[in-house]
Amino acid sequence: MVQKTIRNAKTTQKSPPAKAPGPAVSPLISPLAPKSFPKLPPLAGVRLATVAAGVRYKDRTDVLLALLAPGTQVAGVFTTSRTASAPVLWCRDKLKGGEARVLVVNSGNANAFTGKAGLEGVREIAAEAANVAGCRPQEVFMASTGVIGEPLPSHKITAVLAGLVTQGAAGNWRAAADAIMTTDTYPKAATATAMIDGVKVTINGIAKGSGMIAPDMATMLSFVFTDASLPASVLQECLSAGVGPSFNAITVDSDTSTSDTLILFATGKGGKHTAIAKAADKKLTQFRRALDAVLLDLALQVVKDGEGAQKLIRIDVTGAQSDAAARRIALSIANSPLVKTAVAGNDANWGRIVMAVGKAGEAADRDKLKISFGGHVVAEKGMRAAKYNEALATKAVSGRDVQIAVDLGLGKGAARIWTCDLTHGYIDINGSYRS
Amino acid sequence: MVQKTIRNAKTTQKSPPAKAPGPAVSPLISPLAPKSFPKLPPLAGVRLATVAAGVRYKDRTDVLLALLAPGTQVAGVFTTSRTASAPVLWCRDKLKGGEARVLVVNSGNANAFTGKAGLEGVREIAAEAANVAGCRPQEVFMASTGVIGEPLPSHKITAVLAGLVTQGAAGNWRAAADAIMTTDTYPKAATATAMIDGVKVTINGIAKGSGMIAPDMATMLSFVFTDASLPASVLQECLSAGVGPSFNAITVDSDTSTSDTLILFATGKGGKHTAIAKAADKKLTQFRRALDAVLLDLALQVVKDGEGAQKLIRIDVTGAQSDAAARRIALSIANSPLVKTAVAGNDANWGRIVMAVGKAGEAADRDKLKISFGGHVVAEKGMRAAKYNEALATKAVSGRDVQIAVDLGLGKGAARIWTCDLTHGYIDINGSYRS
Repeated sequence: MVQKTIRNAKTTQKSPPAKAPGPAVSPLISPLAPKSFPKLPPLAGVRLATVAAGVRYKDRTDVLLALLAPGTQVAGVFTTSRTASAPVLWCRDKLKGGEARVLVVNSGNANAFTGKAGLEGVREIAAEAANVAGCRPQEVFMASTGVIGEPLPSHKITAVLAGLVTQGAAGNWRAAADAIMTTDTYPKAATATAMIDGVKVTINGIAKGSGMIAPDMATMLSFVFTDASLPASVLQECLSAGVGPSFNAITVDSDTSTSDTLILFATGKGGKHTAIAKAADKKLTQFRRALDAVLLDLALQVVKDGEGAQKLIRIDVTGAQSDAAARRIALSIANSPLVKTAVAGNDANWGRIVMAVGKAGEAADRDKLKISFGGHVVAEKGMRAAKYNEALATKAVSGRDVQIAVDLGLGKGAARIWTCDLTHGYIDINGSYRS
Repeated sequence: MVQKTIRNAKTTQKSPPAKAPGPAVSPLISPLAPKSFPKLPPLAGVRLATVAAGVRYKDRTDVLLALLAPGTQVAGVFTTSRTASAPVLWCRDKLKGGEARVLVVNSGNANAFTGKAGLEGVREIAAEAANVAGCRPQEVFMASTGVIGEPLPSHKITAVLAGLVTQGAAGNWRAAADAIMTTDTYPKAATATAMIDGVKVTINGIAKGSGMIAPDMATMLSFVFTDASLPASVLQECLSAGVGPSFNAITVDSDTSTSDTLILFATGKGGKHTAIAKAADKKLTQFRRALDAVLLDLALQVVKDGEGAQKLIRIDVTGAQSDAAARRIALSIANSPLVKTAVAGNDANWGRIVMAVGKAGEAADRDKLKISFGGHVVAEKGMRAAKYNEALATKAVSGRDVQIAVDLGLGKGAARIWTCDLTHGYIDINGSYRS
C-alpha cells in the first residue's frame, strides 16, 4: 500500500472533524507541487464532507460526498478504455438525465474489473445515497480510484453516507481534495471567477491523479463545480471543448485508466443571470475562458505530480500537416522513455527527439525539421544547428521547467502536450503499488 | 560514454590481432545472457575483420568489415522511421542491385541526422571500400550505430579499410559481434544448418541492440550470412516473412531507431544444390525454418539484453478479432510502463493487464477476457478468477521468464510479443548515455 500520499496539512482549509483521522504526513512531495493549496471560496449549492471509511487505506480519509442543490445540471467526460470501471459505466448512463444531487467518490479501490458484484456495489451505493439525500438514484454520480480487480467493500461506503449528509459543509475543499488521492503527493484544486452578462459566477475544481496518465483521458478524477445556471447540454459542450487542451493534453506514462472521470456540475445557486441556451453564446465567453483555465490548472497539477516527476516538460509541435499529425508527433515525443530519461539526466539529447519524430508515422522532412530546447535551436537543416551550444542546450533541460519545440516546416498543424520526466521514483512507486 | 559494453572474452573464438585493442571487460552483464557465445562455423564466401578505429569509443574495436564472395546475393529490412539514417538510405537504394561484396559497420556514431555531410561520408566509405575490395560502390553495404546527430568522422573509417581487407578471416564471428555493440552487455550470435534438396547449408548471424527497441524494427543491427545459393528476390521474401515473428515481435521501450538494419547475404559458396527460383519452393522449407530460428534466436538475445532487463516477458494474445488486433493488444501490454514495472517488482498486478487491454482500442469484452500468469488463471468472467491464488500468481512473475497470456474470447486472432521488465537499470543507462 502506498502511504506517501498526502501533503502536510498546514492549510487555511478546515481540518476534518476530530473523529475522522486526517491525512498522513508525506515525506515525499513532488518538487513541482504548488507552494500552497489555493483558497477556494464556498460555492452556493455545494456542500462537502469526507470520512475515513477504511475502504483500503488506514488512518486517512477515503470517501468524499458532495451534496448538490436541487436542479443541479451535470456534464461529464470519461475514459475511452474498453474495460471501463463499474462507476464509469453508471455515470455515463445517468448523464442522460442531465441532473445531479449527490457525488460519492472513494479512493483505494477502483471497482474496475469486478464483474457483476462491482455493478451491484454501485447500485447499492446509489440507492443508499439517494435514500439519505432525498433524491432519485439516477441523480447520484460516483467515482472510484485505486487498485483494479479487487472486490469493492461497498458496505463500508453505504455505512457512512448518512453521517456524511449531516456533516456536509460549504468550505471543505481541502478535505475533499485530500480524500480522493491515491499515489498523489499533494491535493489538487483550482478556482476562478467570471462574469456572465454582468453577474459574477465562481468555478471551483478538485482533481487527483499521478500515474496511468495519458489521453484520453488521464488516470485521473476531477470534479468541477460552478454556481452558474447553465443547462446540461451547454455544460457538456463547454466541457468537451475544454478537455482537449487540458486533460487530454497531458501524459505521464502513456497508460490509460479504466476509471478516468471528469464531471462538471452547475448548481445555478449563484447570482441570477440571463438564461443561456447555447455554448456559443457570446455572454459565455468569459465563463468558458475561466473554465478552460481551471481545467488546465488542474491538468498541469496532475502531470506535475506524475509518479517520480522531477521536471515538467512542455512539448510544442508546429508546422505539421494537420493538428492531428502535430498531436501524434508531440505524444510520440512525450511518451518516449528515451526522451523522458534523457531529460531526467539533464542530457540535451536532441537525437532522441529526431527519433521520436521519425517513429510517429507522420510526414516529416529531415531537412526542414527544426528542434529547440528552451528557445535555443539545437538542430535544423538536417543536422546539428550551426550555432549549437552544448552549455546552452544543457542548461535548457536542467531546470524544473523544460520546453521542447519542434517545427516540421510542412504546414500549419500545431499541438501542445505536457509531460514529466521518467526517473527512479517512477520505478520505485510502480514496482510496489499493489503489494 | 557507455563502457559497460562487452562480456569478458573467455571464448573459443579467435581474439582480435594484438595491435587492435580487445573489448573492455564489463562488470555488468544481463542476467538473461546466454551462458556462452555460440560456436559459429566458418562460412564459405565470408571473411571478417575488425579494428579499433577510434570513431568514438576508446580501447575497443568499433569497425567491422565483411568481405563477400563475388556474386553474393543480398536482401534487407530497414527501419520505418521517417528520419532514417544516411546508411539506411544508402542500403535501401543499393538493395535494388541485389548483389553485395562488402559490408562495413561502425559503432559509436549512428550517422543519423547528419545532413549532407552524413551522406557524403557514406559515399566516401563506399568508394574506398570498393577500391580496396575491387568491386563497385553499389556492392558495398553499410550500417552505423551509436549517437544520433554527431558528424561521423568518416576519415577514421576509410583509413582502416585497406588494412581490414588484408586481415579478413573466415572464423572471426566473435570479434565481429563484439565490434558492433553499443550499450549491449554481451555479443549476440546464432547459427543453424539446413538441407536444401539433400545439400547441407549453413546460416550464421550476429546482432546488436539493447535500447530504442520496438517494431518495426528494433533499434538494432543484424547481419545474417548463408552459403546457400539463392537469388536476391527469394532471399528478400524469406527475410520479410521471417522478420514478423522475430525482430518485429520484440519491444524494449517502444522507441524505434533511425538506424535499424537487418541484412541477409547468400554467398552461394557452400555445397552445390538445385537452383531455387521461388521462396515458396518446398525444397526451401527446411532452410526457411532454420533462418526463422536464427532470426528469433537473435531477436530474443536483443530483448534479453534490453537496457536494465532482469526478466524476459512473453505475451501471448489469443481470441482476438484478428491477428492485427491481437498484435496491437500484445504491444499495448508489452509497452505499458505500469505492466513492466509491476513485473520488475514481482507484483502479479493483473489489473494493469486489464488496463493495457482496455487502452489498446481493439474490441474487448470484459466478461469474456481471461488472463493467465505462467498458466495460472488470475482473471476471468469479468473479475478475479474464483481459483485465484496470490502465491501462485506471484511466483509466476518472480522468475527470469515471465509468461502472460490473454484470451479475449472473441475470435481467432493471435499474436506473440516479447519484451523485458522496466527497472532502475534502464533509467541509469538512459539518463547518461550521451554524456
